[in-house]
Amino acid sequence: MNVVPVVDQIIERNGGKVSEVYYVACGGSLVDMYVSDFFVRTESTGVTSGWYTANEFVHATPKRLSPTSVVVLCSHSGNTPETVAAAALAREAGAQTVGLTYNKEAKLLDESDYSFVYEWGDETRVHNNPMAIMLDLTVNLIDKLEGYPHIEAFRKGMAIIDTVVANAEKQVEPRTKEFASKYQDETMFYVLASGASYGHAYGFSICSLMEMQWLDAAPIHSGEFFHGPFEVTDEDTPFIVAKGLGRTRALDDRVLEFLGKYAKKVEVVDAKELGLDLIDDAVNEYFNPILFYSVLSKYRYALSVVRDHDLDVRRYMGKVAY
Amino acid sequence: MNVVPVVDQIIERNGGKVSEVYYVACGGSLVDMYVSDFFVRTESTGVTSGWYTANEFVHATPKRLSPTSVVVLCSHSGNTPETVAAAALAREAGAQTVGLTYNKEAKLLDESDYSFVYEWGDETRVHNNPMAIMLDLTVNLIDKLEGYPHIEAFRKGMAIIDTVVANAEKQVEPRTKEFASKYQDETMFYVLASGASYGHAYGFSICSLMEMQWLDAAPIHSGEFFHGPFEVTDEDTPFIVAKGLGRTRALDDRVLEFLGKYAKKVEVVDAKELGLDLIDDAVNEYFNPILFYSVLSKYRYALSVVRDHDLDVRRYMGKVAY
Repeated sequence: MNVVPVVDQIIERNGGKVSEVYYVACGGSLVDMYVSDFFVRTESTGVTSGWYTANEFVHATPKRLSPTSVVVLCSHSGNTPETVAAAALAREAGAQTVGLTYNKEAKLLDESDYSFVYEWGDETRVHNNPMAIMLDLTVNLIDKLEGYPHIEAFRKGMAIIDTVVANAEKQVEPRTKEFASKYQDETMFYVLASGASYGHAYGFSICSLMEMQWLDAAPIHSGEFFHGPFEVTDEDTPFIVAKGLGRTRALDDRVLEFLGKYAKKVEVVDAKELGLDLIDDAVNEYFNPILFYSVLSKYRYALSVVRDHDLDVRRYMGKVAY
Repeated sequence: MNVVPVVDQIIERNGGKVSEVYYVACGGSLVDMYVSDFFVRTESTGVTSGWYTANEFVHATPKRLSPTSVVVLCSHSGNTPETVAAAALAREAGAQTVGLTYNKEAKLLDESDYSFVYEWGDETRVHNNPMAIMLDLTVNLIDKLEGYPHIEAFRKGMAIIDTVVANAEKQVEPRTKEFASKYQDETMFYVLASGASYGHAYGFSICSLMEMQWLDAAPIHSGEFFHGPFEVTDEDTPFIVAKGLGRTRALDDRVLEFLGKYAKKVEVVDAKELGLDLIDDAVNEYFNPILFYSVLSKYRYALSVVRDHDLDVRRYMGKVAY
């Protein structure tokens, strides 16, 4: 999808003034926003950002929220009550709201100044997934406001990410089956990542393992591992490390060196080995999560097959009152 | 400790201009900073903040870092290499650095424009713990820069927090023994909280359970629980819920209502029941983490006794190269 017209309108409405972007959603949609928040925090000098689970944004709303704020909201169904409430509240504060959903009839659309109704499914090209749309919007927004020196490299990356991911998915498939076979009886996984990828350590834990497989899981930031968490390491504990490209790769390497000595159950998903280095070094770290989402989805699928636990089975979500 | 002279100097040096505060540390020290970051994000209109594990701050340094930034760093030993490196880097960028440590000879002190050498131990009054010092510094900084309407209530809270915590510790002791006895054979805990308290859901997981007890653990934000994580709920899975006072209490209540129906192993640590409501409603949410740290330390101690696993035993930290 072409994000540029929306970026232009956002900037125009406030005479060029955007003070912060809030990324507000729940669960998997919030995960998809992590990289955009990370991009603003890391690359912008004039705009700040915040990453909020929707109900916290609603109950403890930042005082900064104002007409110069942009609030990006995403909900697959488009009717997640907390996210719709956050959008309404943001609008009431005069902020500009950008809503993303799969559902053309979503309530979220009623509260969105700008909206993206995305497609979904195995056949969809990843650059049209909500994660990529939000990242594209964010990078273009920062570029238009203050200039992003690597905008051309980023655009080239967006142009080839579908191909990179499709190749990586093929490449990883045999490994996902080995993984599933080896780990089918495990009940607890630690998932590690750093930088822009950390969101997917969180996402793979809470969505793929906890929600879809009813398995225990915990994300750990690679930089935090040596400051507490690593004391659980032993030969029986499984670790999945999403080893990204970019500036924080050294943090993941350090984790892997340690695990190589003291753990036996370690699965490495390496963005470089999977071909993400086809994208320019100046920007490829921001594409890590797009690659990891697709590749880790293959892992969860393989696990679901071996465990005979369908990815769509829920016992509470949408079934009981909560 | 009196934070006001440091606040005055910070403000004076830049002629009143502070654009953001970065909170940078590792593990338990990073946990102690969560509430300060949350305060700035929630209450300030003119200052923003960032909460970083030190090695990520070093490798993917925010472009905003500048002479109008304040970087708060904390390391118990004062020699955590990543934190010392972050302090050096911040100084080189012209930012003002505030260092907190227990160690008078710490390298961190060499890189700190302002420093607090705190005391530590069971007898120390909590308002002199690093978490409280950083919060006090933060609240006073925001108040001096832009006015914080509840500064008097906050100061009154600081004046009585020692008493509140001491009473809560006494009150909770029998319960910690029951908890330890009931859960002594569990191997995995989920720890939930929201708002200013979330840092301690993270901290109790990575420091108290993983590091000090070699038990599996995962923090979950109460607001995120219903968007994935809750699918693991069953009668065998233990949950610890730190139910705070303040604006996000409704999020914790919703979790507890659900767990009341579908879980059997639920430990509630309720700040209200433990007397934190002695502090004014306008500010007591910011004192939740100070209370929870002390009270949860009693829980971990009771668990360590029953499990015969001393809190100070490490197998890797400070023992092997990493």
